[in-house]
Amino acid sequence: MIISAMEKAEILVEALPYIKDFYGKRVVIKYGGAAMTDCELKQKVMQDIVLMKYVGMHPIVVHGGGPEINSMLSRLGIKSEFINGLRVTDQDTMEIVEMVLGGKVNKEIVAGINASGGKAIGISGKDGNLIEAGPLDADSKMGFVGEVLRINPQIIETVIENGYIPVIAPIGMGSEQESYNINADLVAAAIAVAMKADKLVLLTDVPGLLMDPKDSDTLVSVLRLSELDDYIKRGIIAGGMLPKVKCCEEAVTGGVGRTHIIDGREPHSILLEIFTDEGIGTMVVNE
Amino acid sequence: MIISAMEKAEILVEALPYIKDFYGKRVVIKYGGAAMTDCELKQKVMQDIVLMKYVGMHPIVVHGGGPEINSMLSRLGIKSEFINGLRVTDQDTMEIVEMVLGGKVNKEIVAGINASGGKAIGISGKDGNLIEAGPLDADSKMGFVGEVLRINPQIIETVIENGYIPVIAPIGMGSEQESYNINADLVAAAIAVAMKADKLVLLTDVPGLLMDPKDSDTLVSVLRLSELDDYIKRGIIAGGMLPKVKCCEEAVTGGVGRTHIIDGREPHSILLEIFTDEGIGTMVVNE
Amino acid sequence: MIISAMEKAEILVEALPYIKDFYGKRVVIKYGGAAMTDCELKQKVMQDIVLMKYVGMHPIVVHGGGPEINSMLSRLGIKSEFINGLRVTDQDTMEIVEMVLGGKVNKEIVAGINASGGKAIGISGKDGNLIEAGPLDADSKMGFVGEVLRINPQIIETVIENGYIPVIAPIGMGSEQESYNINADLVAAAIAVAMKADKLVLLTDVPGLLMDPKDSDTLVSVLRLSELDDYIKRGIIAGGMLPKVKCCEEAVTGGVGRTHIIDGREPHSILLEIFTDEGIGTMVVNE
Amino acid sequence: MIISAMEKAEILVEALPYIKDFYGKRVVIKYGGAAMTDCELKQKVMQDIVLMKYVGMHPIVVHGGGPEINSMLSRLGIKSEFINGLRVTDQDTMEIVEMVLGGKVNKEIVAGINASGGKAIGISGKDGNLIEAGPLDADSKMGFVGEVLRINPQIIETVIENGYIPVIAPIGMGSEQESYNINADLVAAAIAVAMKADKLVLLTDVPGLLMDPKDSDTLVSVLRLSELDDYIKRGIIAGGMLPKVKCCEEAVTGGVGRTHIIDGREPHSILLEIFTDEGIGTMVVNE
Amino acid sequence: MIISAMEKAEILVEALPYIKDFYGKRVVIKYGGAAMTDCELKQKVMQDIVLMKYVGMHPIVVHGGGPEINSMLSRLGIKSEFINGLRVTDQDTMEIVEMVLGGKVNKEIVAGINASGGKAIGISGKDGNLIEAGPLDADSKMGFVGEVLRINPQIIETVIENGYIPVIAPIGMGSEQESYNINADLVAAAIAVAMKADKLVLLTDVPGLLMDPKDSDTLVSVLRLSELDDYIKRGIIAGGMLPKVKCCEEAVTGGVGRTHIIDGREPHSILLEIFTDEGIGTMVVNE
Amino acid sequence: MIISAMEKAEILVEALPYIKDFYGKRVVIKYGGAAMTDCELKQKVMQDIVLMKYVGMHPIVVHGGGPEINSMLSRLGIKSEFINGLRVTDQDTMEIVEMVLGGKVNKEIVAGINASGGKAIGISGKDGNLIEAGPLDADSKMGFVGEVLRINPQIIETVIENGYIPVIAPIGMGSEQESYNINADLVAAAIAVAMKADKLVLLTDVPGLLMDPKDSDTLVSVLRLSELDDYIKRGIIAGGMLPKVKCCEEAVTGGVGRTHIIDGREPHSILLEIFTDEGIGTMVVNE
Repeated sequence: MIISAMEKAEILVEALPYIKDFYGKRVVIKYGGAAMTDCELKQKVMQDIVLMKYVGMHPIVVHGGGPEINSMLSRLGIKSEFINGLRVTDQDTMEIVEMVLGGKVNKEIVAGINASGGKAIGISGKDGNLIEAGPLDADSKMGFVGEVLRINPQIIETVIENGYIPVIAPIGMGSEQESYNINADLVAAAIAVAMKADKLVLLTDVPGLLMDPKDSDTLVSVLRLSELDDYIKRGIIAGGMLPKVKCCEEAVTGGVGRTHIIDGREPHSILLEIFTDEGIGTMVVNE
Repeated sequence: MIISAMEKAEILVEALPYIKDFYGKRVVIKYGGAAMTDCELKQKVMQDIVLMKYVGMHPIVVHGGGPEINSMLSRLGIKSEFINGLRVTDQDTMEIVEMVLGGKVNKEIVAGINASGGKAIGISGKDGNLIEAGPLDADSKMGFVGEVLRINPQIIETVIENGYIPVIAPIGMGSEQESYNINADLVAAAIAVAMKADKLVLLTDVPGLLMDPKDSDTLVSVLRLSELDDYIKRGIIAGGMLPKVKCCEEAVTGGVGRTHIIDGREPHSILLEIFTDEGIGTMVVNE
Repeated sequence: MIISAMEKAEILVEALPYIKDFYGKRVVIKYGGAAMTDCELKQKVMQDIVLMKYVGMHPIVVHGGGPEINSMLSRLGIKSEFINGLRVTDQDTMEIVEMVLGGKVNKEIVAGINASGGKAIGISGKDGNLIEAGPLDADSKMGFVGEVLRINPQIIETVIENGYIPVIAPIGMGSEQESYNINADLVAAAIAVAMKADKLVLLTDVPGLLMDPKDSDTLVSVLRLSELDDYIKRGIIAGGMLPKVKCCEEAVTGGVGRTHIIDGREPHSILLEIFTDEGIGTMVVNE
Repeated sequence: MIISAMEKAEILVEALPYIKDFYGKRVVIKYGGAAMTDCELKQKVMQDIVLMKYVGMHPIVVHGGGPEINSMLSRLGIKSEFINGLRVTDQDTMEIVEMVLGGKVNKEIVAGINASGGKAIGISGKDGNLIEAGPLDADSKMGFVGEVLRINPQIIETVIENGYIPVIAPIGMGSEQESYNINADLVAAAIAVAMKADKLVLLTDVPGLLMDPKDSDTLVSVLRLSELDDYIKRGIIAGGMLPKVKCCEEAVTGGVGRTHIIDGREPHSILLEIFTDEGIGTMVVNE
Repeated sequence: MIISAMEKAEILVEALPYIKDFYGKRVVIKYGGAAMTDCELKQKVMQDIVLMKYVGMHPIVVHGGGPEINSMLSRLGIKSEFINGLRVTDQDTMEIVEMVLGGKVNKEIVAGINASGGKAIGISGKDGNLIEAGPLDADSKMGFVGEVLRINPQIIETVIENGYIPVIAPIGMGSEQESYNINADLVAAAIAVAMKADKLVLLTDVPGLLMDPKDSDTLVSVLRLSELDDYIKRGIIAGGMLPKVKCCEEAVTGGVGRTHIIDGREPHSILLEIFTDEGIGTMVVNE
Repeated sequence: MIISAMEKAEILVEALPYIKDFYGKRVVIKYGGAAMTDCELKQKVMQDIVLMKYVGMHPIVVHGGGPEINSMLSRLGIKSEFINGLRVTDQDTMEIVEMVLGGKVNKEIVAGINASGGKAIGISGKDGNLIEAGPLDADSKMGFVGEVLRINPQIIETVIENGYIPVIAPIGMGSEQESYNINADLVAAAIAVAMKADKLVLLTDVPGLLMDPKDSDTLVSVLRLSELDDYIKRGIIAGGMLPKVKCCEEAVTGGVGRTHIIDGREPHSILLEIFTDEGIGTMVVNE
């Protein structure tokens, strides 16, 4: 399909009301899943983020890194024990996790954003003491799987006020300088709260919350916190969706305007969420 | 033709390199002709200007007002003498010209920009002593037809630094506080020079400079100053095109990066000029 | 009478305590009546305003424009219907009102202030969305006679912080970009409230509130709000004085320090009000 | 003579062009002589200085202190030797000079300015290393009579930018922290040069330079540097006038706009100099 | 004893936690006693103060001046009457007190700090209206012995924000511009409260509060306000220690973090207080 | 040896002149060798750096990471080819190099500085496009061994102005977003030049340049650029010392004040260099 220059101009202009509404707003994006492994999708996400910055928003990126961590661990012959589906993270594993997340995945995203015309800076939770963390479980059976104890957002403020896009690896620092591997969704939610973000967007590999997980026509567009318990009881929110929704709950009760679980497999899904009235995916709201 | 949300997102993203290039740049737009009288075109120009501001440019609008002046003069039964096609502007006429330009046309543009989501402020050459003027002809046969003696751009700096879009009526002020009616193209060029603008765009009712005025396929895309004399001698630059080109010459020799004579009858012509590689109309460059 | 240089110096020095008291204060001046039509008085008002700015105050001028509007309407043969003494303002009339106020009267005042050494900038209620307005009467019988719905004072803040004197034409903008003609006293009061002004001064063609309108020796120097109803019942506040006093009431209940109804026919009446202990005219206070 | 309020207002307004011309300008005032000993004159000088600050100038005061020093020395029974009319300043004398100048005279002026509504701060040449000094004569026969080696004006910049009026005692500091007594005229000239002042005003006890010292009608209003040698040769500039004129020469050759020797015995002489076209006293200019 | 370069480096590094804790903090130092009369101690105090500034604290110095005042009074043959051990300060005495404190002692400290590499500025209570004062006793039998009525700390804010160290002479100004001699401890406490200081340090000639004044091993390290009355009743806090402790009480109840009575006879006592865990002297706390 | 509190205070004060001289200065530190592998030395370097920041300098850290890279490569069974002693860096190796440098070594230093009381932020050459790089050798036989093409120092400016200590991994980014492994000494020199640093300090595992490499008493304290060729010819500068000296040459000819090759095996060697008159190691100067 050929779109004329003038039609393109029209489309730019159609974006104006959204640009206006989001001017100066902070949007935390949890970046992961297919949007991070598929080369073409990846590039589109970078473009979306840079565009957001240029039209006046403050995107803040938090990324995961599962597949690359697994691949490196297996190259090194490090075997992991799993408890309740969560990898037990011993000292050796943690070292690799941190290197892969902070030294490889993080910097690739930074380079990608810069190549798309933005100015990104990669940050781990150690930089500027951004993420103070502790072990997730009291008896530390999980090793260095951590939880956020406290966010010190000053470094992000400095970075965004000076025109940079922060890209954050979900590594926390304990009181003895030990590193913790924290779930990226949780980090994104905690940072959204600490930064008083207007929006938290979780990029996933599903279309959103589905009444029937096999039927994408059963998408729940808006999920109210008041309905949460009922959805859980009925088993509609279950499996991998449960922690995602919990993150959203944490964010909106912490003051974040709106939170979205969207389909990162769809090209430019972030822009679609922001620049169309209908949005995409499932929006979780504090009602 | 139906364009999908995703195609729209793609188009937004295509604009990124242009947005980046023009970030923080100053663009003076001479607004007049059909783009000012046709309701639909008018609205599109407003949208283009607001979009420019939101993506980081500093548009500065200078407007004419011919038809509305004529209409008011005829309603008042004021007859004008013409010398060489220029209206002799006596005291009575000048009063009407100033009222129509500064009180009606200017404020309509301001209201239009504001309605499109921008923050505009209307300025005449008297505000903040912006335009110091004197009579165009030594013997003042033309009455209050003026020329720019000096631009005091401080007020425009204040206005654009604070997020506003200045909309300027081409009224100059003489040393005795008398008003002068100045050609809007000339004012636009002088302000572009004084503001060290990166671009001057003249909206006209022709596609640009044509080798054969009857054949729009003969558009001259780039006009070098070095070719100017030859084009004039050969009669290609003539009639109403001559003063337009002269304005562009004044601007580029005064340090303005690029100047463009474009077709205001084309919807979103300003965006087309800025957001496409080919641009539209005729670009006059200092070569 | 010849006043020696040294006596002049003494007089400058006498002004010191007043200069000190008003340093940094905002003073809204409703400018109209004889002070606007008499050439000599006009110039003195300009000088007063510029002096105020130079000694550290922030004067904000709101002007009317009755006589010039009438004159232009009659030149154009536009007849107006009147209801309760207020001109019904149809579309045609409104167009003329706006042109005369914003394009002529406003710019003359701007030019006058600049010629007196100040830096003024003319603003209508459309600029920067300063005055959001709607019809004064519910059934719109009065046409485009408007009332202030909301003041967006940001543009005035920008202007005064940058050393300019704002000169405001009392045109409001409706939600459909339509213009409204609003009583200048009301605009002055609303702006005084929105700007948290320390003083509102209404220039009129009477000495102030008189117990006996025919005897200027019966001036009421201070009018307390608590006395208002009584004065109205007794018919002392009546006719044109009633809306003036109502404006003052609105201002002082809205937080404006002091409001004054003074005689604009007296040369330098503004300075007299500010730089003498007794002041002149009638001060309305919230007691 | 009774001057009406309106005449007073006229006089304020007459000052406008001068206020405008001197807005933001720096004026160094050497304060001494009768204007410092006569109680009434003293108060008028304070008022003049405060007024200057309020109308936007930056007055900088440098004071002497002869009579009070003499009185204290005599109370203490300290006898001074004189060489060429200059007091030899031994350690004991210097101690007294510094105490009287910095602890008494300086603070009295500060208190006087504050009482007149200004905000003054007293500074000696030691504060912020303002005046680096050394002995005036190579063989130090004069003791701690000093000359200015270098002015560090940063502290004055800080002070005036924050709204204060600096009052400077002419004490210099040597490389061993020893104090020097420096002629206040010289200090005033050096500070005027260092501060890039627009004006230096020396308050004296004579009407200015007189062709015939006994006839005040022979005042030289303007003295050009080019005429200096001739005036000195002819003995017109002689005695106490010679060092004053030399100071002015140093200042104007150092870039100070204008320098004035005026009669401090005349009430409000500073204002008369600044706010009248003729000025008073003798102006020394670089021509 | 020879300390190697590396040991010195270790010592610098040991100071880090203290430097960090006090970064940006305000510390008011009452400077007097032996630390002011002994040449070597004096220099060490200057160095301590400059070091504090360089490592990020904001030291504010308030000084006394007893011995120098006495010496000057006796040189002038002025005899003082004493009531309850306080010198009755008549006009003549006050003049000398002010000169010695503001003109001599103050400037010597300023010069000393500057010579040690700092940037000091001397201030008396008159400068910038810093200390508004009145007579200490209702019937003014004590003459110009004053008490602080009000501190206007703006000038100190200006001075410390611009990198200077303020050195304050304890002279207050009455409503008639008359000077008052105020106890320096009281001034220090009042300024500490007005500046929201984190610490007030009183340099004295004793080791602190001693249970047995003859035995320096009986030092009370921490004195709680709750214990005060008891200590006074038991006669442990008595004599010159009583007003010192009262000053500390005033400061800590006014919001000053910690107050210290330390031994100025010990070299670098201020640094010892700040840079060691134990501190020295007696700390008075609000418990 | 026991050093008393007072002796410690003396030592702090001795540092004052150095603190003063380096206030606000930028010092680039190449951190590597034993100082990075030895736990105790490591901690001392962190402390030195934090102390520098607190006393007003701007330390900028560039680190290497040889041993940890080797260890990870060997764990992964990646074998490297060497050409002229330089590791050929293929894609696989580069991936590991980047992860180890940016994700492990860099973050450990950051955490160490933060634990010592500073605020550090880790940056690779990709962040904010800091280091634009290309292959070191024209024919790319060395693979991704790179050289600095251009430093974009803006991100470091942002970081240091906001109170952070930048810690830089020597990874460069090519035009295709590919990563390059660059010698840390070269990066340090290039950044020192781009940041207009006052000092470049290279931490090595030798005492400096020795006339006889086996005799540490033959240290060359000052090496002039003019002597360089001669030293090289004579074989005194050879082996690993040659590139170090070349880095210093590049820095001082690029405008860096002073460059130092010091012994990182000596505890607190950085402080010793800065806070003692003799300094340590070899200083290379542009003479």
